[in-house]
Amino acid sequence: MDANLDRRSALTAMALAGAAASINAMAQTPAAAPAGSAPSATPLPPAFAGNPTLKPLAFDPAKLDGLSEKLIRSHWENNYGGSVRTLVAVRKQLAEAMASKDTPAWLYNDIKREHLLRTGSVVLHEYYFDNLGGNGQAGASTRKALGDAFGSYGAWENEFRRIANGLGGGSGWVVLGFNTHTRQLENYWMADHAHGPAATLPLLVMDMYEHSYQMDFGAAAARYIDAFFKNIQWDTVAARIEKAQKVASA
Amino acid sequence: MDANLDRRSALTAMALAGAAASINAMAQTPAAAPAGSAPSATPLPPAFAGNPTLKPLAFDPAKLDGLSEKLIRSHWENNYGGSVRTLVAVRKQLAEAMASKDTPAWLYNDIKREHLLRTGSVVLHEYYFDNLGGNGQAGASTRKALGDAFGSYGAWENEFRRIANGLGGGSGWVVLGFNTHTRQLENYWMADHAHGPAATLPLLVMDMYEHSYQMDFGAAAARYIDAFFKNIQWDTVAARIEKAQKVASA
Amino acid sequence: MDANLDRRSALTAMALAGAAASINAMAQTPAAAPAGSAPSATPLPPAFAGNPTLKPLAFDPAKLDGLSEKLIRSHWENNYGGSVRTLVAVRKQLAEAMASKDTPAWLYNDIKREHLLRTGSVVLHEYYFDNLGGNGQAGASTRKALGDAFGSYGAWENEFRRIANGLGGGSGWVVLGFNTHTRQLENYWMADHAHGPAATLPLLVMDMYEHSYQMDFGAAAARYIDAFFKNIQWDTVAARIEKAQKVASA
Amino acid sequence: MDANLDRRSALTAMALAGAAASINAMAQTPAAAPAGSAPSATPLPPAFAGNPTLKPLAFDPAKLDGLSEKLIRSHWENNYGGSVRTLVAVRKQLAEAMASKDTPAWLYNDIKREHLLRTGSVVLHEYYFDNLGGNGQAGASTRKALGDAFGSYGAWENEFRRIANGLGGGSGWVVLGFNTHTRQLENYWMADHAHGPAATLPLLVMDMYEHSYQMDFGAAAARYIDAFFKNIQWDTVAARIEKAQKVASA
Repeated sequence: MDANLDRRSALTAMALAGAAASINAMAQTPAAAPAGSAPSATPLPPAFAGNPTLKPLAFDPAKLDGLSEKLIRSHWENNYGGSVRTLVAVRKQLAEAMASKDTPAWLYNDIKREHLLRTGSVVLHEYYFDNLGGNGQAGASTRKALGDAFGSYGAWENEFRRIANGLGGGSGWVVLGFNTHTRQLENYWMADHAHGPAATLPLLVMDMYEHSYQMDFGAAAARYIDAFFKNIQWDTVAARIEKAQKVASA
Repeated sequence: MDANLDRRSALTAMALAGAAASINAMAQTPAAAPAGSAPSATPLPPAFAGNPTLKPLAFDPAKLDGLSEKLIRSHWENNYGGSVRTLVAVRKQLAEAMASKDTPAWLYNDIKREHLLRTGSVVLHEYYFDNLGGNGQAGASTRKALGDAFGSYGAWENEFRRIANGLGGGSGWVVLGFNTHTRQLENYWMADHAHGPAATLPLLVMDMYEHSYQMDFGAAAARYIDAFFKNIQWDTVAARIEKAQKVASA
Repeated sequence: MDANLDRRSALTAMALAGAAASINAMAQTPAAAPAGSAPSATPLPPAFAGNPTLKPLAFDPAKLDGLSEKLIRSHWENNYGGSVRTLVAVRKQLAEAMASKDTPAWLYNDIKREHLLRTGSVVLHEYYFDNLGGNGQAGASTRKALGDAFGSYGAWENEFRRIANGLGGGSGWVVLGFNTHTRQLENYWMADHAHGPAATLPLLVMDMYEHSYQMDFGAAAARYIDAFFKNIQWDTVAARIEKAQKVASA
Repeated sequence: MDANLDRRSALTAMALAGAAASINAMAQTPAAAPAGSAPSATPLPPAFAGNPTLKPLAFDPAKLDGLSEKLIRSHWENNYGGSVRTLVAVRKQLAEAMASKDTPAWLYNDIKREHLLRTGSVVLHEYYFDNLGGNGQAGASTRKALGDAFGSYGAWENEFRRIANGLGGGSGWVVLGFNTHTRQLENYWMADHAHGPAATLPLLVMDMYEHSYQMDFGAAAARYIDAFFKNIQWDTVAARIEKAQKVASA
């Protein structure tokens, strides 16, 4: 919260930045844009370049046990898809705002908060959908890993479900993660997409935003939690645990 | 936010949980506790076990350039140390609360929020102190990696500093991280210890809580930002980047 | 985040507090409790006493224009009602925790956060339902007040709707309020029940949590916004404005 | 989080908005601007007009008991003053963003969050400084009011101090407030300037951001809490309580 804000309009500064970016863009525009494409924008550096591509569902959404196709499709297209599209716009906005030294830091950070939020939304949704579509039966090695960390597999499940229950009626996520710094398997409560445990690889991700269940279950979050557990794709989780163990020993 | 809260006092439930834990503890108490120690507590499973050990500073806090020994020692002992000690208590509290099925989910999640917050504080502070104590000169490979991601090393530094400036006067962190899912190097704004980018390995971590600078600089956060940059231990950052690249190709 | 946390289990302390509270309760228990009631609890001071009574809807939920009775009833009973019931439990928990000087401050504040959140949920929901059930036509004096503050009535509506649109897909509220300190009519964005403008009397309150619309509209928040505007009870809003003006001149 | 974001650059839209605002501004520019001033801006409607005037301290900052003049002056000028100045810029930015129908709702709300945050900072700081400069002795009627609400004056003070203790090391506020809706006197925990209890008039406001004490006490927040209590201007608090009671009976 810098006191040294620019008294001139930040908007004016951003408009100037836009002009500068356009000039810059012209200098770097490739000679030939693909036919039929929109006029080429500045090629942004990777840290600001957006990716508008949605990751397809790895399962048939018509075949989940107790979660409707309509719910899953709406969640994937509108909530996940909306964040994918917004994140592209956020990154572009950041690049333009950086092009002016007059953008006030408070305004820049307002957009960086959106960047953190949308990054969380995109990444966590991709983890979430990827760990759906299974039969809900954890394999022996996964059960052992969770039992070793939590006392028993049941103790792990109890905590994960309790966190989920407490998030009913609002926004948030439950994440089983491997903290690469403390080397612990833990369950984490998160209030929104912008929250997250430091230095942690997600292993099992559960969306508790109301858009994950209201369409099928109304306010009955507990029924969604049951349905989620029935459809966990544990093979994906096992592969993530295996990769986390490699990271831990790297 | 579950509507089905137990109308009985949550406290009563937790007291019962405490009793249960004590019984459990007795069953597992080793035959001989160290003389003079408090009665031995239950050996907690790893996901709930605390670690009260502070990670020592890897540099001599009397020898930083423009950051006082008093500031660094207070930050390390009181703010980082306070979170290390509190996290041990939080985990113990969670274990006791889980021992009762009657703990309301809202109360459990209140403590899980503290768990997320303190985990962030402990982990990020350890990253922070570990990337201090250097001469502030990034090596060629680091400069190249940042230049590749941000357009130029200067562009990276400009964004990192702008985020830091915008956080002056409050709480928060600036983190250069490698997002293992999107495979991008990015700078992230974080409002407090509980925020964090999903699936991301920290590479350079800067504390912007006011306890990081008020003692030396008062409200002049910009002077702290300059001092921080002069003391970055870039060798540590380079090693983290190298490890992140290994993770990326794993 | 106090470093001086009690190393003893906070739970033990809270259990002791519970015992103390029980003893205290006995001393103050009225001679005869209503037949069939649970054993009487301590009469709590007003700051900690809970009120489990839901405020009835002031309109017939079957007769809104474009918002289903099922949606309104679920919202009122489960989301509003859930917070009413939880707030009673939160207050009781706080009273018990205060009865012990050993409750760590971090744990106390975790519950105070829930207190802030649930207070917001209860109060804002009561404002929200009370400003539904009308015909959506603002009267002349209200239109003038909003026009004076925002340039025109349309300018006010545009901003209110834009904030609502931006909250689609998550949690939050839009509040037209009178700031008693700055004496301004303003629209406020709020991320969750715990957010709120300082020293402000709400005039028109709109719930943007997904439970306000998902059941009727799925992810189409824009359709809910239209429906909300059609059902605003502007007489209630006018009465609130009138009262705010009295406060302003008090 | 609207999915229907405009794919065109938001910046472009805002630049256009800026142009529109400029045109609008010209039409309304008074005939003669003060000599030497910048070109006159659009006269903004009250809801967007900023007020750059700092409220002067009502006490001599050199004469507090245990809080240094340097600390108070820095807090007033840099932290309070910084928010006053930023809030003017935020409101101007909002007006410009509203002038374009193409501003994405997510970007608008990012700035509305800053608006909420800065409004809280300005208002709460004014309450805070106004309730400093006294002798710390609450009068009989205030003690009675707090005793009636909390069981005893000491019980009130214990809770207020405990919340303050729990906020040490981070950001936040403690507020004794009168909730005009529930008609209760309560203490509230707030994590940052954007938090706040619904429909509540502040009576006693305590800043727990680290800039309130680090300069004098380092990390020893408990010493600041003691010093704050010694300097409370209870006459101001009593006047606020009296006004709140009028509002309650209005």
